[in-house]
Amino acid sequence: MAVARIAVVAGDGIGPEVVAQARKVLDAVLPGIEATEYDLGAARYHRTGEVLPDSVLAELAGHDAILLGAVGDPTVPPGVLERGLLLKLRFEFDQYVNLRPSRLWPGTTGPLASVKPNEIDLVVVREGTEGLYAGAGGALHRDTPAEVATEESLNTRHGVERVIRDAFARAGRRERRKVTLVHKTNVLTHAGSLWARAFAAVAAEHPDIETEYQHVDAAAMFLVTQPQRYDVVVTDNLFGDILTDIAAAVTGGIGLAASGSINPERAYPSMFEPVHGSAPDIAGQGVADPAAAVLSTALLLDHLGHPDAARRVTEAVAAELATRTSGSPRRTADIGDRLAAHAAS
Amino acid sequence: MAVARIAVVAGDGIGPEVVAQARKVLDAVLPGIEATEYDLGAARYHRTGEVLPDSVLAELAGHDAILLGAVGDPTVPPGVLERGLLLKLRFEFDQYVNLRPSRLWPGTTGPLASVKPNEIDLVVVREGTEGLYAGAGGALHRDTPAEVATEESLNTRHGVERVIRDAFARAGRRERRKVTLVHKTNVLTHAGSLWARAFAAVAAEHPDIETEYQHVDAAAMFLVTQPQRYDVVVTDNLFGDILTDIAAAVTGGIGLAASGSINPERAYPSMFEPVHGSAPDIAGQGVADPAAAVLSTALLLDHLGHPDAARRVTEAVAAELATRTSGSPRRTADIGDRLAAHAAS
Ligand SMILES: CC(C)[C@H](C(=O)O)[C@@H](O)C(=O)O
Ligand SMILES: CC(C)[C@H](C(=O)O)[C@@H](O)C(=O)O
Repeated sequence: MAVARIAVVAGDGIGPEVVAQARKVLDAVLPGIEATEYDLGAARYHRTGEVLPDSVLAELAGHDAILLGAVGDPTVPPGVLERGLLLKLRFEFDQYVNLRPSRLWPGTTGPLASVKPNEIDLVVVREGTEGLYAGAGGALHRDTPAEVATEESLNTRHGVERVIRDAFARAGRRERRKVTLVHKTNVLTHAGSLWARAFAAVAAEHPDIETEYQHVDAAAMFLVTQPQRYDVVVTDNLFGDILTDIAAAVTGGIGLAASGSINPERAYPSMFEPVHGSAPDIAGQGVADPAAAVLSTALLLDHLGHPDAARRVTEAVAAELATRTSGSPRRTADIGDRLAAHAAS
Repeated sequence: MAVARIAVVAGDGIGPEVVAQARKVLDAVLPGIEATEYDLGAARYHRTGEVLPDSVLAELAGHDAILLGAVGDPTVPPGVLERGLLLKLRFEFDQYVNLRPSRLWPGTTGPLASVKPNEIDLVVVREGTEGLYAGAGGALHRDTPAEVATEESLNTRHGVERVIRDAFARAGRRERRKVTLVHKTNVLTHAGSLWARAFAAVAAEHPDIETEYQHVDAAAMFLVTQPQRYDVVVTDNLFGDILTDIAAAVTGGIGLAASGSINPERAYPSMFEPVHGSAPDIAGQGVADPAAAVLSTALLLDHLGHPDAARRVTEAVAAELATRTSGSPRRTADIGDRLAAHAAS
C-alpha cells in the first residue's frame, strides 16, 4: 500500500516547474508516495470550458492530500478559477483551517530596517469556510443608478470555535504559546461578539496559553511595525487573506510563503500550495524559485503525520536560503535537486 | 461674521492637549474663527451616560466643520463611542469621503529600509457611509452552539460612484494623476462588480488620469513592498480602515497621520482629527506630539476653501519635522507655538 495518495494539480504558469521540485523533495523524504496528476486551471478552462468537473472532485476526494502549484492566467475572467476551483475545494472539502506560516529566514532580507532574521516566526490560522467568502450576497437594479449590491459575512459558533481550537492546539506545540485574536469587534459587533466569546471560552480551557485581542487595523499596522510580537494569529477568512499577505511582505514577499487549506480531522483531503501565483511572465524559463512549493510539502507532511520528514524539508530550505548569495544564477531544477538531496540525508 | 464656525471636540486623554495646539495654528493662519467647545467622549459618558445627545448633534450641524482630538478610554466598553459617536457623526453628516494622506516626511524615518523621505506621498479616499459599517447584521441562537452571526456589506451605486468621483477629482489636482481602485472583486463578486463598473464609468470621463485595480490582499502587500507606487487610492469602508493603518505604519506610525471625514458638498459639517487615539498612558504630561492634530487642520482649511492657509500649515509641520533631532525634549505646547509662528509668517 502507498504511504500516501497525493493528487497533484500542477496548474498554470510556473506551477508545473515548482511542483516538479516539490515532488522530488517529497519522494526523497517519504518514498512510496502514490501521486496522480490532475489537469486543472486556466489551460483546461480554455481548452474545455471546464473548471472543476464533479467527476474530478469525486476523484480528488479519494486522496490523502492535494499538492497544488498555481492556477490562473490574466486571460481568465476574475473569479472563475477562484470561486470555481480554489474556493470550491476549500468549501467542498471543509478545509476550515487556512494555515500560513511566516518566517524571516536566515540569509534573506525583508523590507523592515529593524527586524533581523529569525525575529519573525508567526503563523496565521485563517478561517477557511465562512465569513465573507460564503458567497452570500446579491444585487438589485444592476447597471442602473439605483443599484444596490450586498455581501454577507456568515459566522457560526461551530465554524468559529473549531478554527480557534485549532489555533490554540498549534500554539500549545510552539515555544511562545501565544494566540492573538484579530477581528473588528468595535464595528462588526455581531460577528465580533461571536468570535470574542468563542475565543474566551476556548482560552479558558488553555490557561497555559497567553492570549491577546487586536482590531484588524491595528494588527495590520503592528505586523509592519512590530511583527516580532506575533506567534499564532487566529482570524476570519477575509482578515486572514489580508494579514497573511502583510506577513508575507514583511518576511520577504510571497515568493517564500507556503500555505495549507486543512481539514484537521482528515475527513477530506487537505490542500497545500505556495501563496505565489502562476507568474506567467517567467513561466517556462526554469528560473522560478521552488522554495514556497517545497515548504508547502513540509506542511503536507506534517498534516499527514510525518513531522520528522516535514522537519527535514524545512531544514533543507533553511540551509538553501542561508547560503544564497544574491545575484548568483539559480535554476529551478538545480534548487530542487539540492533540496531533495539535503532533505534525504 | 466669523470666517468659519468650528465645533471643537477635544475629547479624552491627549485630545485636549493636541487640540489646543491645533487651535493656536488655526488662529494664526485664519484669524476670526469662531470656535465652540463640545464636551463629548469617555469622560462625559462616565459622568452622564450620554454619548451624543440629539440636542448636541443638532448644534454640531450648525457648524462649518468639527475639529476632534481623540475620544476613548479603556474603561468604556468597545463599540460604545465608536458606534455612538464617531460612526454616528460620519453617517448622520453624510461624511462619505474619509480622507487619509500619508507622506514620509523629510527628517522622519519609516520602518522600510529602502524607502526615502518624500518617496511616499499618497492619499487614501476611503468610503465612509456604506459597506460593512452600515450596521446591518444580527445574530440567532446567541450563546448556544447553534449561534449564527451575520454582518452585511451594503453598497449602492449612489454611494460608490460619488466617492470614486471625489477620488478622481483629487487625483486631477495632484502631480501624478493616478487612481488605484482596491477591492476584492474575485471573491466579493456582487459588491466588487458594482465598484469596478462605477470605477470604469468615472474613469472614462477622465482620460487624463491613469488608473489601476488591485485586490486588497495585494494592495496590503504592495503598501509594504512598494508604497511609492501609489498616488490616490479609492476603496471601501473596511478595506480603507485597514489600508490607511498600513499606510500610516510605513510612514512612521499613526503619530503623524491626519484624517478628514468629509461631506464634499458641505451640506453637513465635515470632521477632522488625528488618526491616533487618546493615549491615556501619556495624557496630561504635555509631551504628546501635536503634529497629526495640526495636519488635520490643514485638511480642514483646505475643505473650507482656504488652500493657502492649508499650505502654510503643512509647510510649518514639514519644517518642524525636518529639524527634529532625535532625543531632544519636545513639549506639546512649545511645538504648537513654533508651528503657529511658522505658519503665520
Ligand atoms: C485567489 C483568492 C480567492 C485567494 C483568497 O482570497 O483566499 C487568495 O488570495 C489566497 O489568499 O489564497
Ligand atoms: C474607531 C473606529 C470605529 C474607526 C474605524 O473603524 O473607522 C477607526 O479605526 C478609524 O479608522 O477611524
